[in-house]
Amino acid sequence: MKTICFAGLGLMGQEMAMNLLKKGYILKVYNRTPLKAEPLVEKGAELALNLSEGVKGVDIMITMVSDDEALENLVTMEVLKNLGEGKTHLSMSSVSPACIEKLSILHRKAGVKLLSCPVFGRPDAAREGKLWLCLAGEDEAKETAMDILKSMAQKIYDFGLHPWVANVIKLAGNFLIASAIEALSEAFSFVEKNGVEAIKLYNIMTETLFSSIVYKGYGSNILEKKYKTPGFKLRLGYKDIRLLRDTARNSYTPMPFASMLEDRFLRALEDQKGDWDWSAIAEYQMTDSGLS
Amino acid sequence: MKTICFAGLGLMGQEMAMNLLKKGYILKVYNRTPLKAEPLVEKGAELALNLSEGVKGVDIMITMVSDDEALENLVTMEVLKNLGEGKTHLSMSSVSPACIEKLSILHRKAGVKLLSCPVFGRPDAAREGKLWLCLAGEDEAKETAMDILKSMAQKIYDFGLHPWVANVIKLAGNFLIASAIEALSEAFSFVEKNGVEAIKLYNIMTETLFSSIVYKGYGSNILEKKYKTPGFKLRLGYKDIRLLRDTARNSYTPMPFASMLEDRFLRALEDQKGDWDWSAIAEYQMTDSGLS
Repeated sequence: MKTICFAGLGLMGQEMAMNLLKKGYILKVYNRTPLKAEPLVEKGAELALNLSEGVKGVDIMITMVSDDEALENLVTMEVLKNLGEGKTHLSMSSVSPACIEKLSILHRKAGVKLLSCPVFGRPDAAREGKLWLCLAGEDEAKETAMDILKSMAQKIYDFGLHPWVANVIKLAGNFLIASAIEALSEAFSFVEKNGVEAIKLYNIMTETLFSSIVYKGYGSNILEKKYKTPGFKLRLGYKDIRLLRDTARNSYTPMPFASMLEDRFLRALEDQKGDWDWSAIAEYQMTDSGLS
Repeated sequence: MKTICFAGLGLMGQEMAMNLLKKGYILKVYNRTPLKAEPLVEKGAELALNLSEGVKGVDIMITMVSDDEALENLVTMEVLKNLGEGKTHLSMSSVSPACIEKLSILHRKAGVKLLSCPVFGRPDAAREGKLWLCLAGEDEAKETAMDILKSMAQKIYDFGLHPWVANVIKLAGNFLIASAIEALSEAFSFVEKNGVEAIKLYNIMTETLFSSIVYKGYGSNILEKKYKTPGFKLRLGYKDIRLLRDTARNSYTPMPFASMLEDRFLRALEDQKGDWDWSAIAEYQMTDSGLS
């Protein structure tokens, strides 16, 4: 069984690490605030007080942190050297393609193989090992990581040799979700303002044209205003839209829906809703329409 | 078997009438330009040269025309009187809730029962009797029309007693579809501009988060630029977005995605693309991104 050092124990990381423990992997865990490691240590994980020490002697390092800055601060040359030449770093954070490109260079210098593998799925899917994985990187590293990836995944999508490609896909996917949330919130406001209960629209749409988990899940979140137990925090949703917009800007891609979405998120952050579920942007459509 | 006068033989109406003939109904058909009635007359429909004469003696009148103006010009007091007191008019056009409210008054005066029943589904679903129907109106009229509705439908959604409610739902539904088309086109441009083939995004998304017919169908339309054999014409898509915006405006509902969509459609109409499929609005995202 491979030994793993798992860094980043937020909502997702914690569940992913717990799933790996359950599957029998030997795990060292690291988090900036060690308190979050407690449930994992109780189940047999070893706590690493710093990542440089934690990665010594393990087969693979997995990182799952919140943004570019956190990842770049975490994965230093010292950490990579201690992990050791020929070893694999499996980066599962949703970060920018540019960040992954920058890290690639650092990894090459240290002789560490980099896989980028952002995930789709909420914490319950992480706990059950049913994530959808967007994988990219060198084939040899994929082989090393494959049993671990399989134990986390409902399905693995391979996007080839260039790690950053997986992050392009992940940002585009989150943009599609955010667009669906906004479209649903506008449609719900529209019918409510015209005397029709939003649930009626929800029922027909999710049974016919939009019978997908995004429309079902977020549609019901919005209808029930289930924002305070986040599956995905609004501040992270904003981060992904910001990274999407940065990447779009750098590649000269105008995206009018994305621009509008950024403003929705900024409005919600101004309102201290960063720790709510990201579908809470729908509240501002309701408010703008005089419905709440 | 009930006798029907079917008016409006466009892309959808023609297939719906053909399906009714196949199911054994006795059909009179009317269209402003009679040429389109030919395939139906060949299969046994009787051609009515004007609607006032056509509706005499039938059990039910069905209308399926392109917009408010066409419907209001078609359904005159003379037509309703000739149809006769106690008879039923089944209006299946995607028109504005305001238009249906106006028609309700006229129907009450003539003693004709009005059902509003706009449909979701493309011409092939109409031909196979597999439409999704948004039905609203008086219960008695629903009973009269039920066998006919069933022969057209994959499923019937009943939205209660007020006919215009069905049209509110239909406009909101078409707005959700148009939003999905726009979001897909932006996401595809984004990945292409960042060196990733759009088909890769399509595959993962339609297999996971967005495994619904709208994302699968329109996503593949966009990828294959399959715009010239319209399932739903762009000029009619624009009409629905315009009716949505009018209805939103009258009810003081700001809808930022809808505003942006209206501009996309105007751009496409300016470019003489009214007879293309409405998913052709995606072309302008490609053009704006320097991709075509």
